[in-house]
Amino acid sequence: MTRIAIDAMGGDHAPHEIVAGAVWAAQDYGVALELVGKQDRIEQELDRIAQEGIMSDCGTGGRQRRVKIDLSKLDIKVTHASEIIEMGEAPGQAIRKKKKSSIVLAVDAVASGSSDAVVAAGSTGAAMASSLFGLGRLPGIDRPAIAVTLPTMKKPIVVIDGGANSNCTPEMLYQFAIMGQTFSKNVLGIEKPRVGVLNIGEEAGKGNELAQATYKLLEEHQEKIHFVGNIEGKEIFLSVCDVVVCDGFVGNVALKITEGTSSMLFRMLKNEFKTDLAGKIIGLMSKPFMKRIYRKINYEEFGGALLLGVKGITVISHGRSKAYAIKNAVRVAKEAVETGVNEKIAKFYEE
Amino acid sequence: MTRIAIDAMGGDHAPHEIVAGAVWAAQDYGVALELVGKQDRIEQELDRIAQEGIMSDCGTGGRQRRVKIDLSKLDIKVTHASEIIEMGEAPGQAIRKKKKSSIVLAVDAVASGSSDAVVAAGSTGAAMASSLFGLGRLPGIDRPAIAVTLPTMKKPIVVIDGGANSNCTPEMLYQFAIMGQTFSKNVLGIEKPRVGVLNIGEEAGKGNELAQATYKLLEEHQEKIHFVGNIEGKEIFLSVCDVVVCDGFVGNVALKITEGTSSMLFRMLKNEFKTDLAGKIIGLMSKPFMKRIYRKINYEEFGGALLLGVKGITVISHGRSKAYAIKNAVRVAKEAVETGVNEKIAKFYEE
Repeated sequence: MTRIAIDAMGGDHAPHEIVAGAVWAAQDYGVALELVGKQDRIEQELDRIAQEGIMSDCGTGGRQRRVKIDLSKLDIKVTHASEIIEMGEAPGQAIRKKKKSSIVLAVDAVASGSSDAVVAAGSTGAAMASSLFGLGRLPGIDRPAIAVTLPTMKKPIVVIDGGANSNCTPEMLYQFAIMGQTFSKNVLGIEKPRVGVLNIGEEAGKGNELAQATYKLLEEHQEKIHFVGNIEGKEIFLSVCDVVVCDGFVGNVALKITEGTSSMLFRMLKNEFKTDLAGKIIGLMSKPFMKRIYRKINYEEFGGALLLGVKGITVISHGRSKAYAIKNAVRVAKEAVETGVNEKIAKFYEE
Repeated sequence: MTRIAIDAMGGDHAPHEIVAGAVWAAQDYGVALELVGKQDRIEQELDRIAQEGIMSDCGTGGRQRRVKIDLSKLDIKVTHASEIIEMGEAPGQAIRKKKKSSIVLAVDAVASGSSDAVVAAGSTGAAMASSLFGLGRLPGIDRPAIAVTLPTMKKPIVVIDGGANSNCTPEMLYQFAIMGQTFSKNVLGIEKPRVGVLNIGEEAGKGNELAQATYKLLEEHQEKIHFVGNIEGKEIFLSVCDVVVCDGFVGNVALKITEGTSSMLFRMLKNEFKTDLAGKIIGLMSKPFMKRIYRKINYEEFGGALLLGVKGITVISHGRSKAYAIKNAVRVAKEAVETGVNEKIAKFYEE
């Protein structure tokens, strides 16, 4: 049985929602768990779940619902970690100083083989640094990158790098392309993923030096990558490609702008409906439709981003994750383990 | 009277919608016009407008309406241009080869003083290149940049550079900050514009080398710039600053992602309402509310982006612009001329 290590202490709603989401996933997806964190706090949460079940308003159109959990049927191991890395700490320093922190020990569990993957909703920097140092890099990969799955009008696309590397070379972006297409094919099930470079125009000569050089490099390796050229920001959601390659600075700005734009639009619409009585009534009637859209684009459905390029599976979740998001993050981790995405990336470089 | 030169042949709907929008602005905002392009085509459009008025569905909640125009009261000059620069042409080459093109002659009109500003909806590259070569740079400015006005929950913000310069230095971004705050203050009327650097985290050490160095440079010049630190993509629409500084590659990606996200959300909502009869009815009732939001975020309301840093006013409009967008672009040009934004940028460097 696949076992997922969970940094139970990381994230805005830790450990309550993190433990709940992990246990929920264990029941729904048939995975074993290794919950890493303060033992007494975790056991307290488990006791509560055994008695009360899990409360969540996700995937229900907004209603709170109770999910009953039968802990006796689940394989849950608790690993005590006496320290916690806080959000503000410098990642590199923190992981060296706090060797008994929940994230470091959760990654250690994967490194030692006691678990198959780690899910972390705390400091992204700490999750990346501990994975890089604890698991090491895959052969052929200079820098691990974050693969973020985004909803579009049709099927989900992968944006890589979502924020691990702010300064990149064309060679790094070439490796991101390899990792992104391997993820798209094996985890998302897209047969022949189309890879595009995020740019400000379609033509080969467009964009900054990095984008231009990356275009050339990917074009030269068409036998290995199904390269479809430059992709503009407004096309991202039109399913014109399956993997969007960019440096981590541009990728992170792009992802956060997407988040900012949609949250602004929903708020504007809410305000607009409030202006008169008719609006209030129509707004109320529209609510279920809005909720369905919101659910389609909500990060909670995607659960987490994969840190690709390390020798192991690390899923990085949104700091705001509640149980439902963590449950989906565990699903992503399980799929990544079972489809052997890392083995396939490694194999790519052996051939 | 302020006279605006219009590249009547540039844009997807030229010359029909371009001439219509310009004439509409002349009547509503009291500006004189210099319409530059194929004389017979422009006169044909003017004849039609004199007889039929202008048809537009903008700012009316979707209904087509007719705007009556009394040409006899307007000051309209037509300047013949025998050539047109097409969208695909390399800008630098094209402006050298096609000296009688509408965009080159429209910029010449500003350079010679016969007009005060130019509005162009054709090739952005050609508008930039002809402005740079035809008007020259303002003292203190190495590279002109595009200032794009974006709607937010509260007041509009300025993103600079919106796409003129893909490869930037910190010094260029410092100049963008100066130009952006001068525009925000003088054209948008924001008393003490708050300037932020677009970045992937709040802390000073975040982001790529360019963002880090720009942070330092702006921090050192706090007496000249009201610098409020790094701004993340998701905060852009929360009115935490008035001017967002970034390189033209990141800026252009950000703007297009905003466009792509909102158009995806509107389409998703439309599809969602289509799923059953109740949805269709609620969708129909929601339409006026959606339209109001759409209008608030629509580029047509903002009309055009200003190319700052050249000795003259160039307003660059969306290629898809119809009459209403061009009308607003002419308004932006008029405001830029009358508030003397260029003189104020130049003065900044004299002090």
